[in-house]
Amino acid sequence: MHEFELINNYFQKLAKKSPCSLKLNDDVFFDKKKKLAVSVDTYVEGYHFLNFKKPELVIKKIIRSSISDLICKGVHPKYYFISGSGNKKSFSKLNLSKISKSLNEEQNKYKIFLSGGDTVFSNKLSFTITSIGYSSDIIYRNKAKINDDIYVSGNIGDSYLGLLCLKNKIKLNTSLKKYFVNQYFKPDIKIGLINTLKKFANTSIDISDGLLTDLDKMLNTQKLSYKIYLTDIPVSSNLKKVLYLKNLSKANYVSKGDDYQVLFTASKAKRGIIRKISSNNGIKLTKIGIIQKAGNKSLIVNDKNNEINLKNKGYLHNF
Amino acid sequence: MHEFELINNYFQKLAKKSPCSLKLNDDVFFDKKKKLAVSVDTYVEGYHFLNFKKPELVIKKIIRSSISDLICKGVHPKYYFISGSGNKKSFSKLNLSKISKSLNEEQNKYKIFLSGGDTVFSNKLSFTITSIGYSSDIIYRNKAKINDDIYVSGNIGDSYLGLLCLKNKIKLNTSLKKYFVNQYFKPDIKIGLINTLKKFANTSIDISDGLLTDLDKMLNTQKLSYKIYLTDIPVSSNLKKVLYLKNLSKANYVSKGDDYQVLFTASKAKRGIIRKISSNNGIKLTKIGIIQKAGNKSLIVNDKNNEINLKNKGYLHNF
Repeated sequence: MHEFELINNYFQKLAKKSPCSLKLNDDVFFDKKKKLAVSVDTYVEGYHFLNFKKPELVIKKIIRSSISDLICKGVHPKYYFISGSGNKKSFSKLNLSKISKSLNEEQNKYKIFLSGGDTVFSNKLSFTITSIGYSSDIIYRNKAKINDDIYVSGNIGDSYLGLLCLKNKIKLNTSLKKYFVNQYFKPDIKIGLINTLKKFANTSIDISDGLLTDLDKMLNTQKLSYKIYLTDIPVSSNLKKVLYLKNLSKANYVSKGDDYQVLFTASKAKRGIIRKISSNNGIKLTKIGIIQKAGNKSLIVNDKNNEINLKNKGYLHNF
Repeated sequence: MHEFELINNYFQKLAKKSPCSLKLNDDVFFDKKKKLAVSVDTYVEGYHFLNFKKPELVIKKIIRSSISDLICKGVHPKYYFISGSGNKKSFSKLNLSKISKSLNEEQNKYKIFLSGGDTVFSNKLSFTITSIGYSSDIIYRNKAKINDDIYVSGNIGDSYLGLLCLKNKIKLNTSLKKYFVNQYFKPDIKIGLINTLKKFANTSIDISDGLLTDLDKMLNTQKLSYKIYLTDIPVSSNLKKVLYLKNLSKANYVSKGDDYQVLFTASKAKRGIIRKISSNNGIKLTKIGIIQKAGNKSLIVNDKNNEINLKNKGYLHNF
């Protein structure tokens, strides 16, 4: 059973009396009247992060992953709550110092504040982060329009390369390895987009599970399809170099998740303003495809306009 | 290291820039300007609940424990988020159905709404519940005054007897066992107190870790002491019966936690209104002691006014 089924079959009916839950179909809870947005996510060792050898980096990753859910909706994260379950080793004095220092750095970088939480004993390490922000409006999922352009912020795929390095599944020189591992632990989330995103985006999501998986989630209940141009998916010069040197297919490296970039659609009329905002704010925004009517098949194509079959479209949480 | 140290040494400094965090010294986060109260708690199998043989009951217990944090502050819980980590067995279709049905019953009973969450795979079962409510004010901890009466709602100790039954550490007849186990899983939290509590309580907390442990927490940074009269601590007629039949000392059964009753202090001038509200609303409120100045020793005394030494004062979370 994957997570859509789980939500649809067992939990959606419990949320139907609360319009703020957005039918559990969006990244956040949003109470428009109270202007409150809330995101709750759980991260488990061996599943969402490999191990806890570098607590200071794992903490950065999960905090950024959590606030990314608000950022992609156009909401400033303000407060966060961290609830950790773990054993004495995970929460040794040394590790607690590292966690505290790391949280402090994230607080200064993103202007967020620790506001509560819990620490409990468990032989399995996990964290639940609750992030909240105040906003009079958000950008919802399921609001794409036919002929919308599809955009993505930043670069895609670096984080996956970092994960492969950490798992010793690819061999790179020290400087490249350092670059990718850094991108994996400290994704360059686009806090600068928050205020501008609402000026042009019809619908949005952050990429946690993979470009195409999250695109499917963003369109979710909409009767629409998409066409993505592989060539246009933005990758870093370092990733380009690795793909070239190792003769790897780009298609297999750009929909693996953990990117925490913003995926959104916008009408063609917004192309000018998007270019301008991108350039003025120094935030890379790249057009990678278009939204089409439902009759068409959703696909990703190469530079000859031929459909590409991906090994997989990213990560689907299964139970 | 117990949880006070953990918070003081590693996390309090991170919260100091956010007055809403109440220095992590209260049960909730409270943003007075936005009228928002938030509580976050994590519950781990084998630690906060024995096992998952009765998912429908475990779920009730953790939901009530979570919203109890808001209720004791005078805040109506409105939305909750549930984040579960567990394996396929814990989240089987049968268990998911039971969880969903149980949540629905709690929603109807307490007028709360599921609003989000997460479900992730882990070999260790745990839940994090985030509850939120809107309120223009709350009752804080650390606001007791010298000579205040100390009160408690409902009865104390039933839940602990239920836990002993579940652990087979006490042998009772079927009907008594059923009563206590029921009290353990479905504590009779005092939703009816929410609106009235602010009329008389100077400070408050809910009893999760034990009457005296939570009393210490409620007074926390205050330079005050207390005197509790063992005879006055309210217990159910069933608990009275068991203590009598088994020749057990009451002192060892009334500060063990999991009661989820409200502990509060009020000035002597409020005795009349408290009696009236208690009687009009059918909510048992019992005066069990007094707040004294710091020079005195905090103690619990028997009917001859002699100090009693408890085996322990309840539960202190250690790391």
